[in-house]
Amino acid sequence: MVNQTNTRCDLMLFGALGDLAQRKLFPALYQLERANLLADGSRILAIARSEAGTDEVRNKLLEKLRQHVKPAEFDENIANDFLQRVDYLCLDFADQEGYQVLNEWRDAVNNELIVYMATPPSMYGVIARNMKSSQCCNEHTRVVVEKPIGHDLESSKVINDELGEVYNENQLFRIDHYLGKETVQNLIALRFANNLFASQWDQNHISHVEISVAESVGIEGRWGYFDKAGQIRDMVQNHLLQLLCLIAMDPPADLSADSIRDEKVKVLKALKRITPNMMETHVVRGQYTAGTIMGKPVPGYLEEDGANRGSETETFVALKVEIDNWRWSGVPFYLRTGKRLPEKMSQIIIHFKPAPHYIFDSDQKHLANNKLIIRLQPDEGMALKILTKDQGLDKGMRLRQGPLELTFSETFESDRIPDAYERLLWEVMKGNQYLFVRRDEVEYAWRWVDQVIQNWHDSDEPPKRYASGTWGPVASIAMITRDGRSWYEDA
Amino acid sequence: MVNQTNTRCDLMLFGALGDLAQRKLFPALYQLERANLLADGSRILAIARSEAGTDEVRNKLLEKLRQHVKPAEFDENIANDFLQRVDYLCLDFADQEGYQVLNEWRDAVNNELIVYMATPPSMYGVIARNMKSSQCCNEHTRVVVEKPIGHDLESSKVINDELGEVYNENQLFRIDHYLGKETVQNLIALRFANNLFASQWDQNHISHVEISVAESVGIEGRWGYFDKAGQIRDMVQNHLLQLLCLIAMDPPADLSADSIRDEKVKVLKALKRITPNMMETHVVRGQYTAGTIMGKPVPGYLEEDGANRGSETETFVALKVEIDNWRWSGVPFYLRTGKRLPEKMSQIIIHFKPAPHYIFDSDQKHLANNKLIIRLQPDEGMALKILTKDQGLDKGMRLRQGPLELTFSETFESDRIPDAYERLLWEVMKGNQYLFVRRDEVEYAWRWVDQVIQNWHDSDEPPKRYASGTWGPVASIAMITRDGRSWYEDA
Repeated sequence: MVNQTNTRCDLMLFGALGDLAQRKLFPALYQLERANLLADGSRILAIARSEAGTDEVRNKLLEKLRQHVKPAEFDENIANDFLQRVDYLCLDFADQEGYQVLNEWRDAVNNELIVYMATPPSMYGVIARNMKSSQCCNEHTRVVVEKPIGHDLESSKVINDELGEVYNENQLFRIDHYLGKETVQNLIALRFANNLFASQWDQNHISHVEISVAESVGIEGRWGYFDKAGQIRDMVQNHLLQLLCLIAMDPPADLSADSIRDEKVKVLKALKRITPNMMETHVVRGQYTAGTIMGKPVPGYLEEDGANRGSETETFVALKVEIDNWRWSGVPFYLRTGKRLPEKMSQIIIHFKPAPHYIFDSDQKHLANNKLIIRLQPDEGMALKILTKDQGLDKGMRLRQGPLELTFSETFESDRIPDAYERLLWEVMKGNQYLFVRRDEVEYAWRWVDQVIQNWHDSDEPPKRYASGTWGPVASIAMITRDGRSWYEDA
Repeated sequence: MVNQTNTRCDLMLFGALGDLAQRKLFPALYQLERANLLADGSRILAIARSEAGTDEVRNKLLEKLRQHVKPAEFDENIANDFLQRVDYLCLDFADQEGYQVLNEWRDAVNNELIVYMATPPSMYGVIARNMKSSQCCNEHTRVVVEKPIGHDLESSKVINDELGEVYNENQLFRIDHYLGKETVQNLIALRFANNLFASQWDQNHISHVEISVAESVGIEGRWGYFDKAGQIRDMVQNHLLQLLCLIAMDPPADLSADSIRDEKVKVLKALKRITPNMMETHVVRGQYTAGTIMGKPVPGYLEEDGANRGSETETFVALKVEIDNWRWSGVPFYLRTGKRLPEKMSQIIIHFKPAPHYIFDSDQKHLANNKLIIRLQPDEGMALKILTKDQGLDKGMRLRQGPLELTFSETFESDRIPDAYERLLWEVMKGNQYLFVRRDEVEYAWRWVDQVIQNWHDSDEPPKRYASGTWGPVASIAMITRDGRSWYEDA
């Protein structure tokens, strides 16, 4: 089934030879071609600094597609058809004159125009201004920008202002690729299409929520870049808070981008400020030391290539987040994310409250709360943990935790799960902003994260060390244990 | 894991050569032996009218076990060990002197005594009186009786009185084998161990409930017997009302037999009386005519062997049952059961109310209520129908009904699902009455069913004909359609 609403687009891709474009964007565009979702006549202008000819670039892209597309999904002919859409332009993004070429490329064609800035954020303003002054964009142009939007509230405002001088908010598509994940969008269907969940989605029925985003990798050559940011900027300000918003938001009156984003902003505004005296109980900051992951020894953060031995940047953070509103009062959201953890795993766990009265064997009481487990990876899917009767004849009325499993990959074998960037690029082409981050979301998220970072600076307490291959500093366990709970571990 | 609380029992089985004993009871006892749940020294006295020797009977039983136990579960050695426990006594149940032999058999042994009356109910009183006068039972004896307990309130009182003269209620184990089904007991765990369900189990969250017990068979040579009863006495008064009670009952304060049965009785007392002018909308009575089932032609009810051509006995009944209490006001329970329906199928469907506001594509609105499907057969298990996002890239926010499936046979392959009679015999040995029907349950159930039958008699409207292999009279469809609903059919 092909969605016939797809219109002819011209995509101008700045930073076309960069890592993101090569690993994610072109493979995603190839998949759209393969799914027959690119309208005939849609074109791609790859733009980068390097001197190169279109054929040369096409060959490089073909090679990269072979690398980054699953062999089963790679088709030489489709790839070649796809590359016919691609032209290459060598451009110094700062050189205003150069932008005339963009107009020549556009010429008489009146395809929808999408500009994708896969560049450092510092270039966004430059590109925007130059496009405007050379009149190669207008108020219909859609502009896609990548994170990070700054490294704090102030710097994000600068970037948003630069973009805002040229484009209206309804033209801007700020990427948080987590929003492109199937399971994340599924949160919306799950919460609002199922009254079984919708009617229990509050402090009367939910005791607490866990959001874990664990990476087993370390810095992977990005030491210098990462060290300026740290885990809270790199992961929490965007991905984890976006997940939190989708779980915590009030039901939107409709599915329009702004109805959904209005509700997300309400959550960000309601996040309880973490004051200095709350840091002890609500925030754990960690940095990995040497250890072993899957039997393989790995260096500590301060021993990585290019490391500044004195760095106090965190590679792990655990947070106890409280939301001061009617729905969530008294329901902590425990967030944790870190590098060099035992496995690559992202999951959200909704812990429902147990029944008010318990009538089964007391030694099983610990089982007695339902859990909804939403796995982002590995194998996207969800599971609902419910209790059934253990059916052994000799067991009497013993309980057993039976998961009602829904693993997308298994359950709906028919379809492959689209990569986040395929979904996001497709939504840009359809002009649907609901999976993109609005300016005020970015800024309220920074406002909340900034005060945590400020508290760190004010108390010059160093991050707590944790050995690579462990689940972070013991303080992270202590933080949740203090509340009589524990991080969920699947059996 | 063997439950070590099992004590030595002597089981006196009246009607040991009858169909029930041969097809169900001995195979169930064999399974208890196989599961190592029969204590050493436990004994079985098979009692029947026919002249025969113990060896002869053991050989007959061995042969029957071979027939009725799954080959994979039949073990010659276990069977022979089991049969060593069995003695045979030829007895005219009415001959009081004969009962002395029971005392000789018991002799000095002080095993727990269980008396199982697998006989016509008309014999219960006789057997009870004779056992008492020959002092071969006492107030510790457990007495198991089979349905039917009478054919209406009056006759059930007579039987219960006869048993009551000799035994206290806490000695009586009235069988409704539906209560021995794993899935039925699971209703208790499901409802009360899972707050996700417990907190939604009322008229605020549930729109209606369906209970269907469909048989594909006809009368199977029991025409004369069945014709006196009819489907409402044979199936509704016991099985369907028991299922209804387990679904509708308020949560018991504990799992004791009487706490549970007190709650079930409250439901039976709260059943809305069906008055003559409600018959049109609340009751459908049917009788099958000739037709085909699975491609095979079958005769109509009036053409079966031994049929009385003029019979107006119903072989199908559909009921719209209302419960006048706080939990269920306004929530109809649609019951239907019949013979010669397209398939053998028993299922309960809990229809949850949709979310108060619907924000997805309007053409999918019909999907928008969650359903909990409890299958008694085939393959016992349950499924929760929830909506997720359809993940096709081109689908946008389309919904898809994904079942969260829990099929016992699959999910817990480790264990086999015990047959109802294994469970029930085991509970009798443990002296646990919670799966057995208390006198007042029987009587309140009859009281409600009697007035429906009375209404049938008062209006001499004949049962509506339906062709074998169909889902009963169209009036049954009309009954639920009138409420804007339909009988659930699995996709």
